[in-house]
Amino acid sequence: MSFDDAELKRISKELDKQLGPEFICTRPGQGGMKVSYLSGTTAISLANHIFGFNGWHSEVKSTTVDFVDTQHGKISMGLSSVIRVTLKDGSFHEDIGYGSVENAKSKAIAFEKCRKEAITDGLKRVLRCFGNALGNCLYDKEYLRKISNVKTQAITFNEGDLMRHNQLEARTLKQEAK
Amino acid sequence: MSFDDAELKRISKELDKQLGPEFICTRPGQGGMKVSYLSGTTAISLANHIFGFNGWHSEVKSTTVDFVDTQHGKISMGLSSVIRVTLKDGSFHEDIGYGSVENAKSKAIAFEKCRKEAITDGLKRVLRCFGNALGNCLYDKEYLRKISNVKTQAITFNEGDLMRHNQLEARTLKQEAK
Amino acid sequence: MSFDDAELKRISKELDKQLGPEFICTRPGQGGMKVSYLSGTTAISLANHIFGFNGWHSEVKSTTVDFVDTQHGKISMGLSSVIRVTLKDGSFHEDIGYGSVENAKSKAIAFEKCRKEAITDGLKRVLRCFGNALGNCLYDKEYLRKISNVKTQAITFNEGDLMRHNQLEARTLKQEAK
Amino acid sequence: MSFDDAELKRISKELDKQLGPEFICTRPGQGGMKVSYLSGTTAISLANHIFGFNGWHSEVKSTTVDFVDTQHGKISMGLSSVIRVTLKDGSFHEDIGYGSVENAKSKAIAFEKCRKEAITDGLKRVLRCFGNALGNCLYDKEYLRKISNVKTQAITFNEGDLMRHNQLEARTLKQEAK
Amino acid sequence: MSFDDAELKRISKELDKQLGPEFICTRPGQGGMKVSYLSGTTAISLANHIFGFNGWHSEVKSTTVDFVDTQHGKISMGLSSVIRVTLKDGSFHEDIGYGSVENAKSKAIAFEKCRKEAITDGLKRVLRCFGNALGNCLYDKEYLRKISNVKTQAITFNEGDLMRHNQLEARTLKQEAK
Amino acid sequence: MSFDDAELKRISKELDKQLGPEFICTRPGQGGMKVSYLSGTTAISLANHIFGFNGWHSEVKSTTVDFVDTQHGKISMGLSSVIRVTLKDGSFHEDIGYGSVENAKSKAIAFEKCRKEAITDGLKRVLRCFGNALGNCLYDKEYLRKISNVKTQAITFNEGDLMRHNQLEARTLKQEAK
Amino acid sequence: MSFDDAELKRISKELDKQLGPEFICTRPGQGGMKVSYLSGTTAISLANHIFGFNGWHSEVKSTTVDFVDTQHGKISMGLSSVIRVTLKDGSFHEDIGYGSVENAKSKAIAFEKCRKEAITDGLKRVLRCFGNALGNCLYDKEYLRKISNVKTQAITFNEGDLMRHNQLEARTLKQEAK
Amino acid sequence: MSFDDAELKRISKELDKQLGPEFICTRPGQGGMKVSYLSGTTAISLANHIFGFNGWHSEVKSTTVDFVDTQHGKISMGLSSVIRVTLKDGSFHEDIGYGSVENAKSKAIAFEKCRKEAITDGLKRVLRCFGNALGNCLYDKEYLRKISNVKTQAITFNEGDLMRHNQLEARTLKQEAK
Amino acid sequence: MSFDDAELKRISKELDKQLGPEFICTRPGQGGMKVSYLSGTTAISLANHIFGFNGWHSEVKSTTVDFVDTQHGKISMGLSSVIRVTLKDGSFHEDIGYGSVENAKSKAIAFEKCRKEAITDGLKRVLRCFGNALGNCLYDKEYLRKISNVKTQAITFNEGDLMRHNQLEARTLKQEAK
Amino acid sequence: MSFDDAELKRISKELDKQLGPEFICTRPGQGGMKVSYLSGTTAISLANHIFGFNGWHSEVKSTTVDFVDTQHGKISMGLSSVIRVTLKDGSFHEDIGYGSVENAKSKAIAFEKCRKEAITDGLKRVLRCFGNALGNCLYDKEYLRKISNVKTQAITFNEGDLMRHNQLEARTLKQEAK
Amino acid sequence: MSFDDAELKRISKELDKQLGPEFICTRPGQGGMKVSYLSGTTAISLANHIFGFNGWHSEVKSTTVDFVDTQHGKISMGLSSVIRVTLKDGSFHEDIGYGSVENAKSKAIAFEKCRKEAITDGLKRVLRCFGNALGNCLYDKEYLRKISNVKTQAITFNEGDLMRHNQLEARTLKQEAK
Repeated sequence: MSFDDAELKRISKELDKQLGPEFICTRPGQGGMKVSYLSGTTAISLANHIFGFNGWHSEVKSTTVDFVDTQHGKISMGLSSVIRVTLKDGSFHEDIGYGSVENAKSKAIAFEKCRKEAITDGLKRVLRCFGNALGNCLYDKEYLRKISNVKTQAITFNEGDLMRHNQLEARTLKQEAK
Repeated sequence: MSFDDAELKRISKELDKQLGPEFICTRPGQGGMKVSYLSGTTAISLANHIFGFNGWHSEVKSTTVDFVDTQHGKISMGLSSVIRVTLKDGSFHEDIGYGSVENAKSKAIAFEKCRKEAITDGLKRVLRCFGNALGNCLYDKEYLRKISNVKTQAITFNEGDLMRHNQLEARTLKQEAK
Repeated sequence: MSFDDAELKRISKELDKQLGPEFICTRPGQGGMKVSYLSGTTAISLANHIFGFNGWHSEVKSTTVDFVDTQHGKISMGLSSVIRVTLKDGSFHEDIGYGSVENAKSKAIAFEKCRKEAITDGLKRVLRCFGNALGNCLYDKEYLRKISNVKTQAITFNEGDLMRHNQLEARTLKQEAK
Repeated sequence: MSFDDAELKRISKELDKQLGPEFICTRPGQGGMKVSYLSGTTAISLANHIFGFNGWHSEVKSTTVDFVDTQHGKISMGLSSVIRVTLKDGSFHEDIGYGSVENAKSKAIAFEKCRKEAITDGLKRVLRCFGNALGNCLYDKEYLRKISNVKTQAITFNEGDLMRHNQLEARTLKQEAK
Repeated sequence: MSFDDAELKRISKELDKQLGPEFICTRPGQGGMKVSYLSGTTAISLANHIFGFNGWHSEVKSTTVDFVDTQHGKISMGLSSVIRVTLKDGSFHEDIGYGSVENAKSKAIAFEKCRKEAITDGLKRVLRCFGNALGNCLYDKEYLRKISNVKTQAITFNEGDLMRHNQLEARTLKQEAK
Repeated sequence: MSFDDAELKRISKELDKQLGPEFICTRPGQGGMKVSYLSGTTAISLANHIFGFNGWHSEVKSTTVDFVDTQHGKISMGLSSVIRVTLKDGSFHEDIGYGSVENAKSKAIAFEKCRKEAITDGLKRVLRCFGNALGNCLYDKEYLRKISNVKTQAITFNEGDLMRHNQLEARTLKQEAK
Repeated sequence: MSFDDAELKRISKELDKQLGPEFICTRPGQGGMKVSYLSGTTAISLANHIFGFNGWHSEVKSTTVDFVDTQHGKISMGLSSVIRVTLKDGSFHEDIGYGSVENAKSKAIAFEKCRKEAITDGLKRVLRCFGNALGNCLYDKEYLRKISNVKTQAITFNEGDLMRHNQLEARTLKQEAK
Repeated sequence: MSFDDAELKRISKELDKQLGPEFICTRPGQGGMKVSYLSGTTAISLANHIFGFNGWHSEVKSTTVDFVDTQHGKISMGLSSVIRVTLKDGSFHEDIGYGSVENAKSKAIAFEKCRKEAITDGLKRVLRCFGNALGNCLYDKEYLRKISNVKTQAITFNEGDLMRHNQLEARTLKQEAK
Repeated sequence: MSFDDAELKRISKELDKQLGPEFICTRPGQGGMKVSYLSGTTAISLANHIFGFNGWHSEVKSTTVDFVDTQHGKISMGLSSVIRVTLKDGSFHEDIGYGSVENAKSKAIAFEKCRKEAITDGLKRVLRCFGNALGNCLYDKEYLRKISNVKTQAITFNEGDLMRHNQLEARTLKQEAK
Repeated sequence: MSFDDAELKRISKELDKQLGPEFICTRPGQGGMKVSYLSGTTAISLANHIFGFNGWHSEVKSTTVDFVDTQHGKISMGLSSVIRVTLKDGSFHEDIGYGSVENAKSKAIAFEKCRKEAITDGLKRVLRCFGNALGNCLYDKEYLRKISNVKTQAITFNEGDLMRHNQLEARTLKQEAK
Repeated sequence: MSFDDAELKRISKELDKQLGPEFICTRPGQGGMKVSYLSGTTAISLANHIFGFNGWHSEVKSTTVDFVDTQHGKISMGLSSVIRVTLKDGSFHEDIGYGSVENAKSKAIAFEKCRKEAITDGLKRVLRCFGNALGNCLYDKEYLRKISNVKTQAITFNEGDLMRHNQLEARTLKQEAK
């Protein structure tokens, strides 16, 4: 399977674009600085938007537990996963994601957090290889400085756009038919 | 096998939709907060609804027991499973699911719970990669805030829609024929 | 091999149906509650009914013995099996089944029970991924509450429908020919 | 190779039938109850009858010795075999069979009994997945209650139907020719 | 390669037949009972007769030495072999054969007997899966009771039917030519 | 898949070009010297610009942890990854990247930094094999001496070129339509 | 490659024949009895005669040394080889051969005898699976009793039939030409 | 993919040529002698010039750490990598590269230097197998003696030939358009 | 590749022939008896003569060192090699060859002798499977008794038939041309 | 890919030729004798000349370190590499090369020298299998005696034949155009 | 690739020829006897002459070090290599070569000699399987006796037939053109 010419042109153009502020999250970083990042859910939405729901595939190639340390019953650990994303035309990138925790209350919490964090982190690092719109722009300091000045606009929530249970959709259709 | 154009359009549109409140479960989370989630049975129903019963395939790629601790005869353990979901056109995603238990009464209870929980959890995490309608919306805080204000409508139960034993169906047909 | 369009439509419709009460077994659960479940024999019958005898295939992908404990000559153990069910068009699901025993009189009884229980349990868990009529409905609490109020009808036993030895069939034919 | 349409219809119809009493053996079970079962030889005959001698294939996928205990020179042991039965159109099922022995006089007797019992047991468990007529009905309590009231008819033995040595057949032909 | 329709019909009919008394050997069993069995040489002859010399193939899939015990210089041991028989159309069955010995005079005698016995035993157990005429009837108690009353007829030995050395055949031809 | 002739000519010409100063970063090196390098994000952008977003693929072939040393609770470690970049016509290069850290505060920080640094470093070393414009020029001392005298021009940021949320694009379209 | 119809008929007929006395060797067995057997050289000649020199293939699938015991400098040992014979149409059989020695003077003598004996023994056991004329008749007690009464005829040796050196054949041709 | 005839002729002619002095670097060797060598960046440029950017592929087949010695906190080590270069028509050569360090300040510095040096060294040793112009001439003492007398000409740097950012190129085009 | 019909007929006829005395070597055996055997060089010549130089292929499938014993500095050892000979139509046989030595002066002499002897011995044992003319006749006691009475004729040596150096052939041609 | 007829004739003729004195190096050997050899660079040049730059491929099949001995801080070691050279028509030879060093000052020097020497040595030993012109003549004592009497002619160095930087070639063309 | 008919005839005829004395070397053997052998260089020349430079391929299948003994600093060792020679039509033979040394001065000398000797020895042993002209005649005592009486003729050395450097050939052509 491959993309047709129109798709290729559209995808290429979209990937070149830097991200609007509505896609970017921030969290406090080292030294009081603000760290900008893409959330996992946004990265997945963007990938589905750009490549189509069946246009990109993700894989966990391997996971390596780097260390598990226990001190006073608290768990600190770190592990990494190699993720591969393949487009439907066979194009692919691989990169690593990291998951770590300091002083978790239990091993279960520690392992679950690290394992899931590593995969989501890896997925985002791989997606950014495809271009700005999938996160590569977030590594560009000039862009980060400027985007912080662009105003964010509210996204409105429309109840009518929701996925509804078959029965409810039928009811709506009936009501509309009246 | 692949989806035809009409199927692709329909699936794409449905996957983009955020979920109506009738699909969402909630349980108490950390700090008195309510955690919204998709139950395994709903996720499976949605996948069957969107992709068709033979449109998606699931696989247990591997399972890793992270730890098994015994204290005063109680079992605490955690394990993870890598799950792959493949659509009938070959598209796929992989992710991890986690199962854990604290202080279970027996090893049997502990292992069974963890093993099954990890697979169902993994299945859900993978399905959400395909779009909002399979759970990606539940990671979007804005959506969660708004959906909590949408009213839930009751789904009615219709005995006539049930799968019945051949004989019973035959009887019904006879009665109807009268 | 694949299903033709008529088959696909029929199967899809049947799988969507929730099960009539004649298919459901119950056993006492924790806290005096009644647990509803599908017996292995019913699950197999339903699968054969819906997919055809040659429309679904089952496989034991792996079995893992989780623990074997001996105390005062009694055996407690637990093990899990990964089962894959593949439809004739290549669609498939995998899930885990669990078998466990507490204080069995002998290792033979313990191992045999666990090994067989895990496979049957796994088969049922995988089949339910295909839809309501193969057990997914039994994980839906709303359905369980309602189905408990539907009256069960008796299934009649007809001696003439039995599989008989060649000779006996020949005799019947002769008698009928008279 | 696959079955043609007429074969498929016939096989499907036959597999749906529950077994007549002439196919069922019984042995005393726990608590004075009578356990109904299919003998290995009958299961094989039925499979050959329904699928044809070249319509089904059986395989020993693996064998696991679970335990071998020696006490006062007597041997107790248990082992399981995974069996796969494949129909000529590629349909297949896998299940486990169990063989065990308590206090056998010698290791040779113990191993031989267990190894053979496990394979025959497994073969029967797999065959039953194909439908009632290959044993699935024997797991249905309602059927068992009713079949116990159906009268068994004698099967007559006809010396002329035997497989004879070439010479003897030739003699018979000569005699008939007279 | 496959069987043509006429072959299939003939083979199917022959395999359904129970064996005449001239094919059956007996040896004393437990409790003074007579055990009926097929000798290896007869099983092979019947298979060649029914399937043709190139219609069936046999394989030693694996051999497992279960135990070797030495006491007072005498050897007791047991081992099993998994045998597969494949027909020329790809149909196949697998089963196990067992070889054991008690108190053999030497290891060489013990090993040789067990290894060969297991393969011949396995070959017979597999062949019987194809039908009555290859031994399945011998597991049917009713048949065994009745066949014991059928009279055995002598098979005559004809020197002229022997395979002779080329020279001897030439001489015969010359003499006949006279 | 391969490049067409026009693409080949364009790519070849572009790869031959040495990089303008706007692509080059500098950091202090040994002995007060300035070290010029390509950032990971720029290398990825250039590769996407030159080969197209689906024209090049990257892979983590292997990772080797060379050493992990702990002193006074601080972690020093080094590891290398072999990276392969494959163009869509099958052309490829492989090289190694290195990640190291001295006296990191925690293992998590150390491992994450090293693992990610090695992959990005490797990606850059491999890309440079394709020509000057992907970094080979940066190993040429003559070029480095001269490029340091070329004036850098500012790149302007255009808010209208951003990737925006669907709703926002729709609003813009509406406003424009007015 | 396969046999043509005429070959199949001829081979089938020949394999059915029991062996004439000129092919059978005898050696003293247990209890003063005479043991009849086929020599390796005769078995090979018969196989070449029946299947053609390129009609059958032999293979050593595996060899297992069962034991090597040394006592007073004498060697006793036993080993087995699995042999496969494949006909040119792909038909095949496998069986085991055994080689053993008691109190051999040296390890070299012991190993060489056992290794070669096992292969020749195995070759003969496999060939007999193809029918009477390749040795299956020798396992039939009735035949053995009768063949012992058939008179053996001398095979004459004809010097003119020998394979001769090229020069000698040339001389003969010259002499004949005179 | 392969080279066309014109390419083959051109490549062959170019590879035969010995290198001009502008491609050769020198460093002090043993005994005050001057050692001539090709830098990695020049070797890559020449390979891209001769074979085209997609005409040659490089691979790290394996890396072997020969030794790591620590003395007084200083690290000495050596390792080798086998490199393969494949041309687009499938032609290839393999050779080894070596990386070593004496008394490095840290393991990180030592490993990184050795790993990268070995790959670059190997790449150069393999490329020289293709002919003089890729470095084989540098092993010819006669050539080295003579080339040292050829005058080096300066290569001029042209700012207009640089790869520029899209915006800058656009500006240039606008200015030119004026 | 296969033999054509004429070749098959010729080869088949030749292989059936027993060997003339000029091919047979003898050496003293046990008990003053003369042992007849084929030398390796003769076996190879005969195979080349019968199958053609490119009509048969030989392979060393495996070699097993059975034992190496050292006593008073002398070496005794034995080893076996499995050899396969394949004809150009794919026909093949495998057998074992043995090499042994008693009290060799050095390990080098012992190993070299055994390794080479085993391969040559194995080659001969395999070749004899193809028929009398490749050595099977030498296992026939009747033949050995008779061939010992056939007179050996001298093979003449013709210097003109030798393979000569190109120059010498040229000279001969010139001289002949005079 | 294969050679065409004209190429085959030319290559065959060239390979048959013994080497002129200008290709041969000499070094002092044992007992004051002069050892003649082909340098690696000459062997590569000749192979490129005879087979074309893309007509032969070289591979490092394996490397075995035979020994590493350290005495008084000096390193002595030896290792061998198996090299394969494949021509573009698939023809190939394999041979071994050896690298060794006595009393090297450091491990790095020892390993690097041995590893590179073994590969170059192996390459030369393999190339000589193709004929005289690739070194086989150097093993012929008669040739060595005679070639030592053939006078060597000087090879002239022509600056105009060098590979020059693009700019320099352009300048030359301009000057020539004047 | 295969040989054409004319080639086959020529090769077959040449391989049958015994070698002229100019190809044979001799060295003193055990008991003052002269041992005749083919040198490696001659074997290679003959193979190239008979099969063509691209008509035969050689491979080192495996090498086994049998022993390495050190006494008083002197090294004795032995090793063997399995060599395969394949003709261009796929015909092949395999045999073993042996390399050994007694009391070598150093391990390097010992290993290098043994490794190279084994390969050359093996190559010769394999080549002889193809016929007399590649060395099989040298195992025939009768031939050895007779060839020792054939007079050797001198091979003349012609300087004009040498492979010369391109320049020298050009000069010769110019001189000839005068």
